[in-house]
Amino acid sequence: MTNKGRGLLIVISGPSGAGKGTICKEFLDRHPDVALSVSATTRSPRNGEVEGINYYFMSKEEFKEKIEVNDFLEYAEVYDNYYGTPKSNVEEVLESGKDVILEIDIQGALKVKENTEEGVFIFILPPSMEELKQRIIKRGSETQESLMKRFKSAYKEINFVSRYNYAVVNDEVDLAVEKLESIVCAEKCRVDRIKHSILDSKEGIIHEQLYD
Amino acid sequence: MTNKGRGLLIVISGPSGAGKGTICKEFLDRHPDVALSVSATTRSPRNGEVEGINYYFMSKEEFKEKIEVNDFLEYAEVYDNYYGTPKSNVEEVLESGKDVILEIDIQGALKVKENTEEGVFIFILPPSMEELKQRIIKRGSETQESLMKRFKSAYKEINFVSRYNYAVVNDEVDLAVEKLESIVCAEKCRVDRIKHSILDSKEGIIHEQLYD
Repeated sequence: MTNKGRGLLIVISGPSGAGKGTICKEFLDRHPDVALSVSATTRSPRNGEVEGINYYFMSKEEFKEKIEVNDFLEYAEVYDNYYGTPKSNVEEVLESGKDVILEIDIQGALKVKENTEEGVFIFILPPSMEELKQRIIKRGSETQESLMKRFKSAYKEINFVSRYNYAVVNDEVDLAVEKLESIVCAEKCRVDRIKHSILDSKEGIIHEQLYD
Repeated sequence: MTNKGRGLLIVISGPSGAGKGTICKEFLDRHPDVALSVSATTRSPRNGEVEGINYYFMSKEEFKEKIEVNDFLEYAEVYDNYYGTPKSNVEEVLESGKDVILEIDIQGALKVKENTEEGVFIFILPPSMEELKQRIIKRGSETQESLMKRFKSAYKEINFVSRYNYAVVNDEVDLAVEKLESIVCAEKCRVDRIKHSILDSKEGIIHEQLYD
């Protein structure tokens, strides 16, 4: 799904348990020309993790320098380590004309939205709140109170859907991936994205055809 | 492509020669559940034309009454006859949850845009200006001056693309129809269209699951 112009920044997000990871994996399998955004982290590489594939590994000093020069689309501190999406890497891939998928939690996605004008923000919804509840139960919340608390948190998170451009219900992975493909295809037909290239190419040709 | 909520109003438009008729026909063949908007006219039915299929035939008095009560999404007078898109008919189909395709010239589409808040406006582009020029030549303009005039008119028309939501290049009919399908699918995932149904269904279920 490369195109001649700039690539699309496709932000895939949603509550945990909605299945965004599965959908992204299937989409990338079908479209090897689309890049997956690689996060930077200050934690140590685990066995088998490869620099630039799993993460960009860096020291806390390096990470903080990048924060200073505003080179993260988003970042967060988790258990004394930093994680973030390096702006310059994403920029480079988009500029080359390749689409980039950024799979990220809701908090991260909202920060990305603050830090960039572009981006197609897609919210993955669980098949149903009942299904989400079943998954929460399976994760081992035992008391009615604890179940209530987790469920309320998912409930709250789903309200953030209104900050996104699209919502895709993950009822069947294949169907959800097809919807994702449709969204990417449609976005590339949006006049506000391609207007200049249409009018420029028209301009070029009319000169060639009529005024030469 | 019916959905539970209101149907989509899909406005397919573009310069003559771009092939919008072929694309609409193929789309409707693939999606028999999508309705084609039927125009009203004051001209007499021709042999074989069926009321409600080819046109809604009406007298000039009837037509003018409908204009008075603002019951046209657009209308025009052509060679002493009126042609128009009856608002109430389109409304009825959309309300039933069916999508409606409105195939219409650029002038008509822009009037529809003035008269309704909804509508997905799709501009069909010719494969290239060179191809459009070839078609214009084939239509029999003989002098360089006449060719120039027609070409300039198509050139002007293409500028209206900026008033549309999407542009689809009709290079291959199959590909163009697939893009149209993607646009319809993506529009049905747009958060601003489905937000309320997501949040409402969530609301219903959380009450059922937690508070009963």
